[in-house]
Amino acid sequence: MELNKNEKIDDLELNGLKIIQNKNQFCFGIDAVLLSDFAKDIKKNTTVLELGTGNGIIPILLSSKCECKKIIGVELQEEVSKLARRNIELNKLENRIEIINDDILNIDKYFAIESFESVVTNPPYKKDNTGIKNDLEEKIIARHETTADLEKFIVIAKKMLKDKGAIYMIHRPERISEIIYLMKKNKLEPKVMRLVSSKINNEPKMVLIKGIKNAKEFLKIESNLYIYNEDNTYTDEIKKIYNKN
Amino acid sequence: MELNKNEKIDDLELNGLKIIQNKNQFCFGIDAVLLSDFAKDIKKNTTVLELGTGNGIIPILLSSKCECKKIIGVELQEEVSKLARRNIELNKLENRIEIINDDILNIDKYFAIESFESVVTNPPYKKDNTGIKNDLEEKIIARHETTADLEKFIVIAKKMLKDKGAIYMIHRPERISEIIYLMKKNKLEPKVMRLVSSKINNEPKMVLIKGIKNAKEFLKIESNLYIYNEDNTYTDEIKKIYNKN
Repeated sequence: MELNKNEKIDDLELNGLKIIQNKNQFCFGIDAVLLSDFAKDIKKNTTVLELGTGNGIIPILLSSKCECKKIIGVELQEEVSKLARRNIELNKLENRIEIINDDILNIDKYFAIESFESVVTNPPYKKDNTGIKNDLEEKIIARHETTADLEKFIVIAKKMLKDKGAIYMIHRPERISEIIYLMKKNKLEPKVMRLVSSKINNEPKMVLIKGIKNAKEFLKIESNLYIYNEDNTYTDEIKKIYNKN
Repeated sequence: MELNKNEKIDDLELNGLKIIQNKNQFCFGIDAVLLSDFAKDIKKNTTVLELGTGNGIIPILLSSKCECKKIIGVELQEEVSKLARRNIELNKLENRIEIINDDILNIDKYFAIESFESVVTNPPYKKDNTGIKNDLEEKIIARHETTADLEKFIVIAKKMLKDKGAIYMIHRPERISEIIYLMKKNKLEPKVMRLVSSKINNEPKMVLIKGIKNAKEFLKIESNLYIYNEDNTYTDEIKKIYNKN
């Protein structure tokens, strides 16, 4: 695989998977790894839709974490979606992952509504009007709600999911009340939530949430996930998520 | 203070406060202590409304945790409200705490709407149609939503709070999505949330949540509160909450 300017290949340290990243675009972080692991109960032989796939990191990790048949990744930015396709090739996952270069709002032109068992998404974290924007346009779109806000991700998930289908999302804790409100408003009942902190006495930095379409009310909050021990080594659970146990 | 049948006096282990409890009625637990501590940022010289006051435990603890001028406790059950009044007397808090024996739905007959800076509440945890009901009627009303469901508590809080007034609630984690949904629907924006677990690797058993009327969206999730260390001793934070440091 040839590399273009500003690109590098990173080892995902999971079953030999690798990823090409462009330093001027949004590079994956631990959130992609945690989300893929959180979604590992996705059922065998089902089809997964990933909204806002970026360089393809989540479909690639998911292909290893669960036994789903097919993962569809939707990415708006043409350059980024090309990189995602090259990453699928690099990992020889063309038979399991398909990248669609379009706005997530158009996904019902490609697939029937209510046809997916699962939707996975790591949407932009910041509201369009908040925070310091990164100067590169591709990074702005990945991090800020310039092209689709949180409600659009949730509305599209609802539209594309079958009855009792699941949405898996990672986001910032400060937005959890909006997420819960919008999920409930759209009949995606929050069923599992998990907070992620760096260390035990730290405030959470991320939240994982799973909703089920048309399910009954009952939210299971799992014990917090901590990334580091007091001595700054990885916790056993993080090692397990990275297959290092 | 004379005791009736089935009554006992417990030491609250906080500034010499005591409480008479009836073994056939709902007896206070750590949730009352945690909620009072969570609400300790209630401002000096303000008036607090407590919805569903039971034997008066929360107003009594609050009188010591914050410098509010007055706390109004509303309790539906006549016998229980009498016990609450005796507990106020026992602690010589008649000048700071007033007990109203009525349905929380009638509170606007006693006070002007939008006249409170804070509302505190530890509502019944279980839905009326779920769980094993305790056989004594007084305990059923305290634990189950027989007389007022969660939405009523939130609607009344909204009605009685001033603009930017605060609601403090403790509840079960599995109901947090309903709470957040109802709070947002009623313009009580969730601003602070804290999960409480017995120990580090345990799932949370309680959740503390603070909402502000008409505030902007932004939820601060605090680090989890753990009750016990691995060796079953109280954590330093719990000792501090009980003034034992």
